[in-house]
Amino acid sequence: MTDGMELTNTDLDDLATGTWILGCGGGGNPYFGYLCIKKLYREGHRVRLIDPAQLADDALVACVNQMGAPLPGEERLTDPRVMAKAVRMMEEHIGARFTAVMPWEIGGGNGFQPLLIAALFDLPVVDADAMGRAFPEATMTSFAVKDYPPYPLTMADVRDNAIVYTRAASWHWLERMRRQTCTALGALAATCNPPRTGKEVKEGSHLHTVTQALRIGRTVREARQAHRDPIEALLALEGGRRLFAGKVVDINRRTTGGFLRGTVRIAGLDGDRGHELSIDFQNEFSVGFLDGAPRVTTPELICVIDSVSGDAIGTETLRYGQRVTVVALPAPPLLLTPRGLELTGPRAFGYDLDFTSVFAETRACA
Amino acid sequence: MTDGMELTNTDLDDLATGTWILGCGGGGNPYFGYLCIKKLYREGHRVRLIDPAQLADDALVACVNQMGAPLPGEERLTDPRVMAKAVRMMEEHIGARFTAVMPWEIGGGNGFQPLLIAALFDLPVVDADAMGRAFPEATMTSFAVKDYPPYPLTMADVRDNAIVYTRAASWHWLERMRRQTCTALGALAATCNPPRTGKEVKEGSHLHTVTQALRIGRTVREARQAHRDPIEALLALEGGRRLFAGKVVDINRRTTGGFLRGTVRIAGLDGDRGHELSIDFQNEFSVGFLDGAPRVTTPELICVIDSVSGDAIGTETLRYGQRVTVVALPAPPLLLTPRGLELTGPRAFGYDLDFTSVFAETRACA
Repeated sequence: MTDGMELTNTDLDDLATGTWILGCGGGGNPYFGYLCIKKLYREGHRVRLIDPAQLADDALVACVNQMGAPLPGEERLTDPRVMAKAVRMMEEHIGARFTAVMPWEIGGGNGFQPLLIAALFDLPVVDADAMGRAFPEATMTSFAVKDYPPYPLTMADVRDNAIVYTRAASWHWLERMRRQTCTALGALAATCNPPRTGKEVKEGSHLHTVTQALRIGRTVREARQAHRDPIEALLALEGGRRLFAGKVVDINRRTTGGFLRGTVRIAGLDGDRGHELSIDFQNEFSVGFLDGAPRVTTPELICVIDSVSGDAIGTETLRYGQRVTVVALPAPPLLLTPRGLELTGPRAFGYDLDFTSVFAETRACA
Repeated sequence: MTDGMELTNTDLDDLATGTWILGCGGGGNPYFGYLCIKKLYREGHRVRLIDPAQLADDALVACVNQMGAPLPGEERLTDPRVMAKAVRMMEEHIGARFTAVMPWEIGGGNGFQPLLIAALFDLPVVDADAMGRAFPEATMTSFAVKDYPPYPLTMADVRDNAIVYTRAASWHWLERMRRQTCTALGALAATCNPPRTGKEVKEGSHLHTVTQALRIGRTVREARQAHRDPIEALLALEGGRRLFAGKVVDINRRTTGGFLRGTVRIAGLDGDRGHELSIDFQNEFSVGFLDGAPRVTTPELICVIDSVSGDAIGTETLRYGQRVTVVALPAPPLLLTPRGLELTGPRAFGYDLDFTSVFAETRACA
């Protein structure tokens, strides 16, 4: 295994911008994890990013994330020690040491969790993740799509509570059990997800999503510096599509069943004046309705972005009056397979809707 | 350790009657566990009961029970293999073998769970338990009153789900976590509770409660055979008190939050005609109100008994028209200590009520 690329302080800035956009409103605000890793950098730690191809087939990779509802995460701030506890528990449970760490989901604050573990455990971060964005449920991971074993999973909280799910009958059962426990712990807990071999990561994850987040962050930063439209730059980079621009006029938001659920209503401005886009969310934005008709659905990435700064806005930080632009970014290819759509499409979120791509229409018109 | 007393087939019959009375409406219907142990007896297994005094201080005792809400237990019948899975998980987790098994709660079907493990693992059953009856929550055990460590705990279900709670910040947190997970599993799961040493069992459990259940069952059986009133015989044996006799006229019952909650209303007959006793329950009967005023509260044992047969009636099997006699049996002394009352008195069930003993009045009148 080569040394990989050491992430610079500027990379950390870009990663915060990029993961927040890929979070689709969820994954938790990256700001808290960003502050933690900056502190660790000041203390002399450094984090190396490696290509999945550098992993030996039998490498043992920790997949870490903070699970729960984004709103409690605004009050109970990221603490690397809690995540470290979950990772140590897993090492004890399986009786082996991890050789690398990767994000469970690249979106939002969970894009930073593996960096904290990498710094504390002196492990490389793998340039891949299991969501390709942020998603609310374990059933929506690439590892569930690939039907890899859904256990063991360790969970730890800020108190002295610690749980090992040694077996789970399915990804569905894993999600059901861990969600209930997480809710009991205050809808926020650190989890070390089912460990993956190097082979599984290479064959069953969304590859190069850390560099994707870095690239997005850099593009937005450079556009800002050059006084160009950062959203335009993002769309050009990622092949995304601008869907709507307007003002947030209403938010319905509740933390329930371990998730942050609700709907945001956006009244159109400029070219969209007279129209309304409402977007439902379950931690992340799931389905957007234009004047009441479905306009965009998961698994395509629905991102609500500050129209001026180009910064993403999370489902927990949306508020009345924000000027926002809603864009769609393409979904990772694995999620557009029949099994991928079954697990991450609108029906997986309880909608009686088939998935239709906003990019299919583009191609049809082209 | 001597061989202890081998339980006979008649003992099993008596145990079913006795545990159901000590269940205070909960602990699950013992009939299913009774059928399982009878089958194991037919296959040649035998179960030995030992006195706690026979335990070495460093003996390792498994405390087993099926947790959940009584109603799902009527549909998902007792299967010794599920309980065995939880016990094996615990042995693996702690890296040691159990030397004995004891009931977590003597009341209801949970009085039989350790017998099934004893038969399958060839272990003696300790004549003691941690509830002295049946109770809905782990915080209500003698081990919680004694402040013994609330972890580890293993949980298994009929599918392939298995969880180890390796740490719990308190008994309260243990209960909160395990209840949520159990609810996710369908409000029924097998648990192997925090293992106890022989010393802890001898000093911190309710002693001789298995023989108490056997004695109650035998007394009721003998009274029936002699055409005497079995309830009168029970009260004489246990120093209990007859509170009310009447007919069940209404049941409000719902499975919620992992418990069976509700209220039964009993209209008085004979000497109690014109009066009504209503009893609230959370799996077990918690507080009885006579014509609206508190009459009897936990931790004293509130037992609803078939007026003719002397058989207990569970909160899940109460139905309109049953002729019942409500009796109170004395609480185990540990539960009447300040800490015992704090954890098992009416306030622990959410009532703004102080505990008053129905036996104190008897003594005052005597």
